[in-house]
Amino acid sequence: MSDLPFTFNLPLPHVVPSRVDNHIERRLSAMRGQFLDEAAYQEMLAQDDRLIYEVYEVKRPEVSGEFLMGVSIVHPGKVGSEFFMTKGHFHQVLATAEVYYCLRGEGYMVMETPEGEACVEALIPGSVLYVPPRWAHRSVCTSRLEDLVTFFAYPAEAGHDYGTIEQQGFRKLVVEGADGIQIVDNPRWKVD
Amino acid sequence: MSDLPFTFNLPLPHVVPSRVDNHIERRLSAMRGQFLDEAAYQEMLAQDDRLIYEVYEVKRPEVSGEFLMGVSIVHPGKVGSEFFMTKGHFHQVLATAEVYYCLRGEGYMVMETPEGEACVEALIPGSVLYVPPRWAHRSVCTSRLEDLVTFFAYPAEAGHDYGTIEQQGFRKLVVEGADGIQIVDNPRWKVD
Repeated sequence: MSDLPFTFNLPLPHVVPSRVDNHIERRLSAMRGQFLDEAAYQEMLAQDDRLIYEVYEVKRPEVSGEFLMGVSIVHPGKVGSEFFMTKGHFHQVLATAEVYYCLRGEGYMVMETPEGEACVEALIPGSVLYVPPRWAHRSVCTSRLEDLVTFFAYPAEAGHDYGTIEQQGFRKLVVEGADGIQIVDNPRWKVD
Repeated sequence: MSDLPFTFNLPLPHVVPSRVDNHIERRLSAMRGQFLDEAAYQEMLAQDDRLIYEVYEVKRPEVSGEFLMGVSIVHPGKVGSEFFMTKGHFHQVLATAEVYYCLRGEGYMVMETPEGEACVEALIPGSVLYVPPRWAHRSVCTSRLEDLVTFFAYPAEAGHDYGTIEQQGFRKLVVEGADGIQIVDNPRWKVD
């Protein structure tokens, strides 16, 4: 891998980076057990294995002092009343932060610590979100029409821990209720 | 300092962050010895101690795993034929990268390693620049009218080393020549 500086562009409206080392597609079938409404999940999956989100990764050596970067695109949609979202993860090296810059769309970042502190921050174009070290994070698209598109950067040695979240999800869910978008407690969530 | 996640906005057109912990203003008088044309520098300074660039910093604990972030604004102008620019620096912890996202304006990032490798990358709105570990970096505004505005993030333990650059400047200069913007060798620059 070259150690020369480099630039890439995030051209609107599609915001696919002009340099991509890896493209991840997560479909509904890869999100088993993540949405609260299991019946709605099964019904949707029987019809169509929908594309939920994509990540375009720009790679670097996975050592301290470097960053990994990319663009995350969460498509609009719901499983039952729950908005489409990423799987979400802790960093394997827990004490590493992440920076997000929202390029398009609207939504939320749902976050929590291993001790059960929870935090949900709104994302709109032009907002920078700082996820401090030790906070798991999942992005949620709440627009009916538009993708939620964010640029992200995090320490290259951080790694991903998906397992902890897969067991019981996040403490907070983002759902469409009678009065619009609501942030509600996850009934499956318990402190260890 | 709170360890809760937080967001801030970078509202156009002024792009001053909605959260600021520190505001740095660098005027012409703070740039002594940085521009090649010393006579033009003295003449301009005698008339007006012009504001060359500003940095709005968002602070975090300066430990590994955290990021420092901010917005850099380089104003348009020239000293002699050389465009306004930041002082530029190596990171004190040399092996730490930096990520820039260009929000407004146009210009260049001038970069070099301690071994004398040089690299100049163009910045336009929507471009992401990756400055790998070990590369000193200085941003240069080449618009006649508009500020060069970039958002940046770098490892919080990185620190700044300005001294190395102050001695002889960068290897490359960005100047206005007869044919427009030119990237030329710095006659004062020598490998140690």
